[in-house]
Amino acid sequence: MEIEVLRLGHRLPRDERISTHVALVARAFGARSITYSGQHDAGLEESVKKICETWGGPFKIKYNPDWRNLIKNFRGIKVHLTVYGEPLQNIIDNLRETPRDVLIILGGPKVPSEVYQLADFNISITLQPHSEVSALSIFLHEFFRGKELMKTFENAKVRVIPQPRGKKTLFLNNAPD
Amino acid sequence: MEIEVLRLGHRLPRDERISTHVALVARAFGARSITYSGQHDAGLEESVKKICETWGGPFKIKYNPDWRNLIKNFRGIKVHLTVYGEPLQNIIDNLRETPRDVLIILGGPKVPSEVYQLADFNISITLQPHSEVSALSIFLHEFFRGKELMKTFENAKVRVIPQPRGKKTLFLNNAPD
Repeated sequence: MEIEVLRLGHRLPRDERISTHVALVARAFGARSITYSGQHDAGLEESVKKICETWGGPFKIKYNPDWRNLIKNFRGIKVHLTVYGEPLQNIIDNLRETPRDVLIILGGPKVPSEVYQLADFNISITLQPHSEVSALSIFLHEFFRGKELMKTFENAKVRVIPQPRGKKTLFLNNAPD
Repeated sequence: MEIEVLRLGHRLPRDERISTHVALVARAFGARSITYSGQHDAGLEESVKKICETWGGPFKIKYNPDWRNLIKNFRGIKVHLTVYGEPLQNIIDNLRETPRDVLIILGGPKVPSEVYQLADFNISITLQPHSEVSALSIFLHEFFRGKELMKTFENAKVRVIPQPRGKKTLFLNNAPD
């Protein structure tokens, strides 16, 4: 079972940082990849690749403007996170048990109504407006029951050594100068 | 017991949307207020106030450039969320029991080292880089044990009626035209 994230309608320069944060949450909380549609953004891809090189793991970022076909052709469960959907807590227990891959679709205020139809589940987290970034993190945190908090990443060049005060990082083999 | 959020070092235009998302997460996940330092941003305040007027609740946004004195004078527990801190899962059980107010401090890559000393707890969520937005949401979600997902807000002009497909909102008394 693998999780992929689809970020719809990326706009430049407006979404640069939000989409970067969405991608970093996808990686840190256990998704395998993120695909974004909308405007192509080499800077976004570069930022995410740099994080992956330094912090490790097999996470990938991809661009695909044809989100409709991506959703249609996805073999697995399609979950759309939206303020208008059904409450997470009513659905997550069933979803967790799936052996199938999961596609998490993240939009914004102007998601085409077609997305609501193409998704197997439209899920809301709190029924209040907040953020794609927080919605994705809470979904993955609940999906993995918090196990993602202990996740480690292979081939990392740097690792944080947790401290009650201050910063401590360990530079591993192939560390940058 | 109340929760307040302090967002350090807001920069224009770079942080406009991230700080807005941080504020909306603070509100939706049960904090009482957010204070931000750094550059004053009337647009940020306006966005957050509009959301509160439409979606209800007593949440407030405030500006205070003197973050140092705000932290020093806060009567309660000061929690700094940082990738370098101790894992959330080691600390949250003790924190939840507190009858005292809690200040959640959110920085960014360039947090002054003083903040690590002024905080009672420096807490990390995953030991990986991701986002202030997700860090705050996961902290509050764990702090409230998911009860914030069912939170309702008084004096809302609009309320979402959860749907398996599509969008449905209810406009209440004093609804906008």
